[in-house]
Amino acid sequence: MRLFSYWRSTTSYRVRIALHLKGLAFETVPVNLVAGEQRDAAYLSTNPIGGVPALDLGDGQILTQSMAILDYLDAAYPDPALLPADPLQAARIKAAAMVVACDIHPVNNLKVVGQLKALGHSQEDAVAWMNDWMTRGFTAYQALLPEGTAFSFGDTPTLADLCLVPQLYNAHRWGCDLTPFSRLTDIEARCLALPAFDAARPETQPDAG
Amino acid sequence: MRLFSYWRSTTSYRVRIALHLKGLAFETVPVNLVAGEQRDAAYLSTNPIGGVPALDLGDGQILTQSMAILDYLDAAYPDPALLPADPLQAARIKAAAMVVACDIHPVNNLKVVGQLKALGHSQEDAVAWMNDWMTRGFTAYQALLPEGTAFSFGDTPTLADLCLVPQLYNAHRWGCDLTPFSRLTDIEARCLALPAFDAARPETQPDAG
Repeated sequence: MRLFSYWRSTTSYRVRIALHLKGLAFETVPVNLVAGEQRDAAYLSTNPIGGVPALDLGDGQILTQSMAILDYLDAAYPDPALLPADPLQAARIKAAAMVVACDIHPVNNLKVVGQLKALGHSQEDAVAWMNDWMTRGFTAYQALLPEGTAFSFGDTPTLADLCLVPQLYNAHRWGCDLTPFSRLTDIEARCLALPAFDAARPETQPDAG
Repeated sequence: MRLFSYWRSTTSYRVRIALHLKGLAFETVPVNLVAGEQRDAAYLSTNPIGGVPALDLGDGQILTQSMAILDYLDAAYPDPALLPADPLQAARIKAAAMVVACDIHPVNNLKVVGQLKALGHSQEDAVAWMNDWMTRGFTAYQALLPEGTAFSFGDTPTLADLCLVPQLYNAHRWGCDLTPFSRLTDIEARCLALPAFDAARPETQPDAG
């Protein structure tokens, strides 16, 4: 498999964790978002939305959208599972994952920040914007968790943790005040102590700058 | 079941279509987003992100996040299916759905528009912002479709169509130029001719104003 990825992209980071958790070998194909490579015509034929990640399954089949890729990997390589078999419990975990995937990340990514700057806003405005959405989202995420679990939903990481940890990476990067979210940073520390999460960290990717 | 819903919310509209397609009876509990009812403390205990939809399964269990609710309904009430059993084909359909759910809707919804206005932008700025994201997203969505199908991915509606039709409702509402997207508006017309999509239309909901 080949993963079209950018080291700091939180959606790429989600998929890297899943690939490592499931023990799947992959080659990283860097797409430099800051240099605009995601808008090259050749890349748009790989992923028409012009973003990362995209996963080449090795037989010419390319999958896009991190949440769709994660579901595919979980169905095709079920061990270890990212979601439980019970649909109701799976829906609770997905809801927390979707708080990150739909309510935090899309309003915070590079293209939205670029659009804010095109509208005349400063870097400080952009950072305040990002941290506001992260604070709202982390508040909701924390409220959705059961009491007293080591990871977001139990004793092992799930799809929710795969979304949470990359978003917390971004939160640290942009100086979001995480004081009210010690439950989440505790979970983050437990995740990052696992080899699969550690191997997926942005700083150790081949395109880290 | 009770669906916490707002008539013009495109994420509520997705779930209404699924409930009707699967023949599930439900009661609508209106949450007036324009009046700010989604931020009431009582509602935040139902859905901590302060949005719609939320689905009360009738036994005290409440599910949030439209994409998680749709997956739950498809697992618990599999006929008719919103996704095929083949994980690869399901991933392609989910990728198109996620273009709407992650790349269009989150940057276009009422709270983001409110935030733009709080930053001093006009209604025209907000409408231009929304139409720009819709144009980018519809371009990608159209590029992800197979050739010549009646609905987005075959002869019957899937999860992708359940996301597309509500987003096109919003596109019409805000005057987005859909000339380049005749494939999508053709699919929309076929969907809206089906009783389940017709019953879910915003204009016919109990809280339509």
